Amino acid sequence: MIYWGSMFKLIPAEPITSVSGFLAGAAQAGIKTKNKLDLAILYSEVPCVAAGVFTTNRIKSAPVILSQKHLSKGQAQAIVVNSGCANACVGEQGLTDALEMARLTAAKLDILPEEVLVASTGVIGMLLPMTQVKAGIESIKLHRDGDHDLAKAIMTTDTRPKEVAAQLDIEGVRLTIAGVAKGAGMIHPDLATLLSFIATDVAIDVDFLQSALSKAVDASFNIVSVDGETSPSDCVFVLANGLAGNRPISFDNGEDFQQALNEVCTYLAKSIAQDGEGATKLIEVTVEGAKNQAEARQAARTIVSSPLVKAAIHGNDPNWGRIVSALGRSGVALIEERLDVWLNNICVMKQGCPMPFSKEELRAALINSDNVPIKVCLNLGDGQATAWGCDLSEEYVRINSEYTT
Amino acid sequence: MIYWGSMFKLIPAEPITSVSGFLAGAAQAGIKTKNKLDLAILYSEVPCVAAGVFTTNRIKSAPVILSQKHLSKGQAQAIVVNSGCANACVGEQGLTDALEMARLTAAKLDILPEEVLVASTGVIGMLLPMTQVKAGIESIKLHRDGDHDLAKAIMTTDTRPKEVAAQLDIEGVRLTIAGVAKGAGMIHPDLATLLSFIATDVAIDVDFLQSALSKAVDASFNIVSVDGETSPSDCVFVLANGLAGNRPISFDNGEDFQQALNEVCTYLAKSIAQDGEGATKLIEVTVEGAKNQAEARQAARTIVSSPLVKAAIHGNDPNWGRIVSALGRSGVALIEERLDVWLNNICVMKQGCPMPFSKEELRAALINSDNVPIKVCLNLGDGQATAWGCDLSEEYVRINSEYTT
Repeated sequence: MIYWGSMFKLIPAEPITSVSGFLAGAAQAGIKTKNKLDLAILYSEVPCVAAGVFTTNRIKSAPVILSQKHLSKGQAQAIVVNSGCANACVGEQGLTDALEMARLTAAKLDILPEEVLVASTGVIGMLLPMTQVKAGIESIKLHRDGDHDLAKAIMTTDTRPKEVAAQLDIEGVRLTIAGVAKGAGMIHPDLATLLSFIATDVAIDVDFLQSALSKAVDASFNIVSVDGETSPSDCVFVLANGLAGNRPISFDNGEDFQQALNEVCTYLAKSIAQDGEGATKLIEVTVEGAKNQAEARQAARTIVSSPLVKAAIHGNDPNWGRIVSALGRSGVALIEERLDVWLNNICVMKQGCPMPFSKEELRAALINSDNVPIKVCLNLGDGQATAWGCDLSEEYVRINSEYTT
Repeated sequence: MIYWGSMFKLIPAEPITSVSGFLAGAAQAGIKTKNKLDLAILYSEVPCVAAGVFTTNRIKSAPVILSQKHLSKGQAQAIVVNSGCANACVGEQGLTDALEMARLTAAKLDILPEEVLVASTGVIGMLLPMTQVKAGIESIKLHRDGDHDLAKAIMTTDTRPKEVAAQLDIEGVRLTIAGVAKGAGMIHPDLATLLSFIATDVAIDVDFLQSALSKAVDASFNIVSVDGETSPSDCVFVLANGLAGNRPISFDNGEDFQQALNEVCTYLAKSIAQDGEGATKLIEVTVEGAKNQAEARQAARTIVSSPLVKAAIHGNDPNWGRIVSALGRSGVALIEERLDVWLNNICVMKQGCPMPFSKEELRAALINSDNVPIKVCLNLGDGQATAWGCDLSEEYVRINSEYTT
């Protein structure tokens, strides 16, 4: 449990159904080849204000197209999601199948199909096995609390479920925000191959909710990278059911909610980087002194995405020239003579010149670090940003060459 | 020996000293830790018209800064180059050392230091061992023909030297263009981590030579990718000594020369992709029917750079959804319903719908292919481009994590 000042606390691994009024359940529908949970529903007992952020890939999966449409009124009451098949690049049939998933879920829950958001993740170019999907949806039992089945059912090459909750008090009312996410490969700053669903009991203005989600995603999911890939399936949904009974939150009183939502998204984004395909280390790149924040983010993303930096960190090799080289190709303004660089908290470059350090000691320190910080100071302006990623291992290549994922 | 129509022939593995008036030689100076050639000189007996193309990385090595200056008059007579140390990110001392390399070479050859171009490739952030460099330059013996030492001396993680020559007849005069290149990692379209030196005996206008080189590089070195990285050291030089005695070539009569130069650069660029770090297969991505050529190049580069496409090809996995997904994130205009995709000459997607094919047969065909063609037709316009890259293997990760390169 992590307390952030007096305002709110973050509770790792807390299930999404810890939010009042939300139920969830999952099934082994048989979409994945192995016997694993692969279909799930998240349901709120009352209608919700809803917002979403979607992939920037120009190829969009059928569920993304349908959910964008269903979200146009800013309302939803349920999410149905499957793993094992992305329902992308399959022509018209994809949209028919996505709509059928929404209809089946609506019928089960006695709500309208337009109140159901749909998400799919998995192999691209494969039709959904609708017989299994139908039987799966019918078999799902929704639980009021405690089970982690939803977080497990959305996993693909993830090795562990990713869940977190935040509790905060606003004007004497206790609010909860809880989220789940999946993602391990095809992870990159332009909204990576991930799904994330966030539930909250806050009463909130729909325009503020969309704005808050977009801001939170920019500072979290949009700044993690595993391999530079984006996918047709990426989406983040937030559902707010208002059961907390607070004075509705909007642009004028939303600062605390925004910060809590940022922390929930950041926690999930870091969990994704940490669980990157084949990853053994989390890499945290901080860029300071950039011309502005946009350039700081661009530099941080480029360094954390560099295959040569990632491979060096994997091999515990203090080869810091690769950090500077990646920075140089990021396109941001820089003056070499002003550059300061730290690797694992050791200053390796000061004002553009190499600093003496013990390679053996730094190598030994890297061997013992699960979390490797890299810091670059450009000494040009006030721009500051942090990006997260992971090392590049032989295992990443094995995962992506030996199996169709 | 490859004949291109009646106009010119391409001779793989032909040394650069096959061009009249050019001499080359190399030494084991001790810059690399192992006993390998690591220092070389290319020299023309007469002054040359010269042109160059340099890295777009904002961090530039000292030799790049110096050679840009020395090329400002469009003249040069020699190139001195070392591998094992990039002479980059080392502050003021880097420029002092690069200038000293030019001075030592000029003294040896009895020319001016400004007529010497300098290039270095290797580890970033390390000072050149100038005692070894000085002794090495003094010890180099220049040969009129035949030896491949220059091509070997510039290798870093390359597994083989890369050389090619073209002979063409213009207005009854036989001309020769010959080039060497190095590059295996940090290879990406924005002029990859490579060095390439091209020698020719053509008499030529200097402005046309620079224009022809830039065009040839755009269609060759700027369209290969190994890993998305660029370096501070990248440069391509061309030296033309005029000994062929032809009527000087310029914009009005340069078409044949341009085509031959394109083919020399393309051959060297493909050799680099084929010899990419850890590579077992060449990948050739052709994009047709794009809105324009710029978009075709952008799409082809994105697909050939995709780690997931590269890993799938390494594993002989006909997982074509990754090709479409990479295309989607490339940012080019596309209409999913018009997309046609071929993998290893098998149509896997037609008008946006998956096509039936035998996965087992395609997998077997991929296992037997050293050269995997991927074709995408956008059916939107006339834009066409081809890009080259290589598969992503565990060996790439090993090379870049186990050694400081």
